Amino acid sequence: MTSLDDLLTPALVLDRARLERNLAAMTARMAGHGVALRPHMKTAKSAEVARRAVAWSVGGITVSSVAEATYFAAEGFRDITYAVGMVAAKMAPLAALMRGGVRITLLTDDLGGVATLDEAAGALGVCPELLIEIDTGLGRAGLAPDAPDIVTLGQAIENAPNLALAGVLTHAGHSYHCAGPKGIRAVAEAERAGLVEAAGALAAVGLPCPVVSAGSTPTATFAERLDGVTEMRPGNYVFYDLDQVGIGSCAVDDVAVSVLASVIGHNRARGTVLIDAGALALSKDISAGEFFDDAGYGWVFDAECTSRVGGAWVAEVHQEHGIVTGPGGAPAPFAALPVGSRVRVLPNHSCITCAMYPSYHLVVGSGAIVGEWPRINGW
Amino acid sequence: MTSLDDLLTPALVLDRARLERNLAAMTARMAGHGVALRPHMKTAKSAEVARRAVAWSVGGITVSSVAEATYFAAEGFRDITYAVGMVAAKMAPLAALMRGGVRITLLTDDLGGVATLDEAAGALGVCPELLIEIDTGLGRAGLAPDAPDIVTLGQAIENAPNLALAGVLTHAGHSYHCAGPKGIRAVAEAERAGLVEAAGALAAVGLPCPVVSAGSTPTATFAERLDGVTEMRPGNYVFYDLDQVGIGSCAVDDVAVSVLASVIGHNRARGTVLIDAGALALSKDISAGEFFDDAGYGWVFDAECTSRVGGAWVAEVHQEHGIVTGPGGAPAPFAALPVGSRVRVLPNHSCITCAMYPSYHLVVGSGAIVGEWPRINGW
Repeated sequence: MTSLDDLLTPALVLDRARLERNLAAMTARMAGHGVALRPHMKTAKSAEVARRAVAWSVGGITVSSVAEATYFAAEGFRDITYAVGMVAAKMAPLAALMRGGVRITLLTDDLGGVATLDEAAGALGVCPELLIEIDTGLGRAGLAPDAPDIVTLGQAIENAPNLALAGVLTHAGHSYHCAGPKGIRAVAEAERAGLVEAAGALAAVGLPCPVVSAGSTPTATFAERLDGVTEMRPGNYVFYDLDQVGIGSCAVDDVAVSVLASVIGHNRARGTVLIDAGALALSKDISAGEFFDDAGYGWVFDAECTSRVGGAWVAEVHQEHGIVTGPGGAPAPFAALPVGSRVRVLPNHSCITCAMYPSYHLVVGSGAIVGEWPRINGW
Repeated sequence: MTSLDDLLTPALVLDRARLERNLAAMTARMAGHGVALRPHMKTAKSAEVARRAVAWSVGGITVSSVAEATYFAAEGFRDITYAVGMVAAKMAPLAALMRGGVRITLLTDDLGGVATLDEAAGALGVCPELLIEIDTGLGRAGLAPDAPDIVTLGQAIENAPNLALAGVLTHAGHSYHCAGPKGIRAVAEAERAGLVEAAGALAAVGLPCPVVSAGSTPTATFAERLDGVTEMRPGNYVFYDLDQVGIGSCAVDDVAVSVLASVIGHNRARGTVLIDAGALALSKDISAGEFFDDAGYGWVFDAECTSRVGGAWVAEVHQEHGIVTGPGGAPAPFAALPVGSRVRVLPNHSCITCAMYPSYHLVVGSGAIVGEWPRINGW
């Protein structure tokens, strides 16, 4: 058996016990609401994680790229929702999967694009199901819950010879800017109510709407009611991160991924310790800075990932250097971080940090490695 | 022959003519100074780029990770400087390369670590050359130019049975925060003078110092004199980016890499256009924001990358969505960016953006693809 000591740094580490706990908790929560869990695999991008998240079934899952759809289909998943607005130029590789028996449900909010998608589907010999994207407050994409265009778009899809209407989808990503259950509960209810309103508009004119799909990790965690919703699509919950700690979705010791790094230098004049995890190893995501003054590019834990080292955090990153300082910019805890020693950095945003690595080193307990799970990156 | 139209988006595009012009200009500049050019391959991470940067020789180049050292050695490079502080735990794979005949020069500023490095080198059967890192103003790592420890460390290295002293190295990365030649010239002269002072301290006690290595893209571009310096290590210049445009190292049409993206939606209510290049495809680097109010996550150009589309820029990113707006937050130029059309985004920081891709699509003229060049990512 190998251990973390055998890895070159930086490396991405996944704690199996925390992962399993996170998966079980969300599964139980969704079961309690009586809605399906369709985990968003944009965070983990790993078939090993996906299989555990869906209890060894063949779906359904959510993806955000052609590369993910292709990878998960090859890994045996048969019910995949592609939850980013579709354009015709991406249809060919997805149609190949559909012809192979994989259900790939697509997303649109663009009335003007229906004819183009229909034409592409026809040319490719497929008849994909489409969800209509609804904006329940994020303001990124989608039609407003009360927009008359929802019905117009639904009718256009149903009338297109090579498309089928599957229902409605929303993502309340603005829950990421709430701190604590109260604000998230309000966002979750707006997400639910807006989505159900949109579904109702389709039903009122006799259009089909079997899928009523919502979800983000915070709203899936704190929603008080989900009636009218058929499925939730949280993704980040499999690993969590500092941002989710700040939001209140999880506790620090729920964060399942961390970056193993080595101390490569001491700068006594500046009071900083240098580690070999910088902008590439941690990403330049600073989202948890919304909640913590000392989030920086991550919190510095000991090599076992059990306790934070003297309040240390990665205050600055260069491409391959992380610059560690102490609480409030005080000198880093040099004595606890000798050159050559190792640390684990809890990332701001696991979706972004994990994308820098080809695989997870799966650990149990204080550092025994029990597997390496590949990820699919790119597009 | 394929064209950009055949690529799935997002994809990383490299303009061959711009690359060749950038390489030729820096080569000529260094030749004019009479110093060697040892390009830093942390930006390109590509053997095809490296071979052109060193005029088809077998070195010397600079790297920043074990993965890069291993890859470039396998690609035939025989003189590699590893310009990040070394720790013993990384020595084994590097020693394997050294035993295969590759010169890998290492870096340290840590007197306390010499014995450990020496012991590791001895156990691995190698005698690596070490450079002493000098801090000429960046404040990241390295000894001050007048630090007595430079000589102490030099003597410790020379006295170690399995190490050899190669000289001194510095990186004036704080030149990245200058705007315009005047400030950069001052940083370049401080970089040169500090490094030469450190080299002089070694020489004064009879220690060897054959290598006097400096360099960043801005200081390599604007240095007025480099006497006493033996080599420069710029890296970003091969591609440039918006940050270097802001610094003044290059013009906009020198930026050789861009991200090909598709317009995937219009949000008329918010005045935004959505593209499929978000936080992963562009990175979350916002460095050019120091120079441009509208840098955001990149400037939006037409598909031929010849002109900016109505002042559009990527104002916000989610994982797979880029949110495009017009000048000063005015509505995006919807008419010029129909859903399904394609754009090229000039990135803030090419070193970070390119790291999200496994390869470059090499284009000539207005979009004919003439090759695909792999990159080495990870560690």
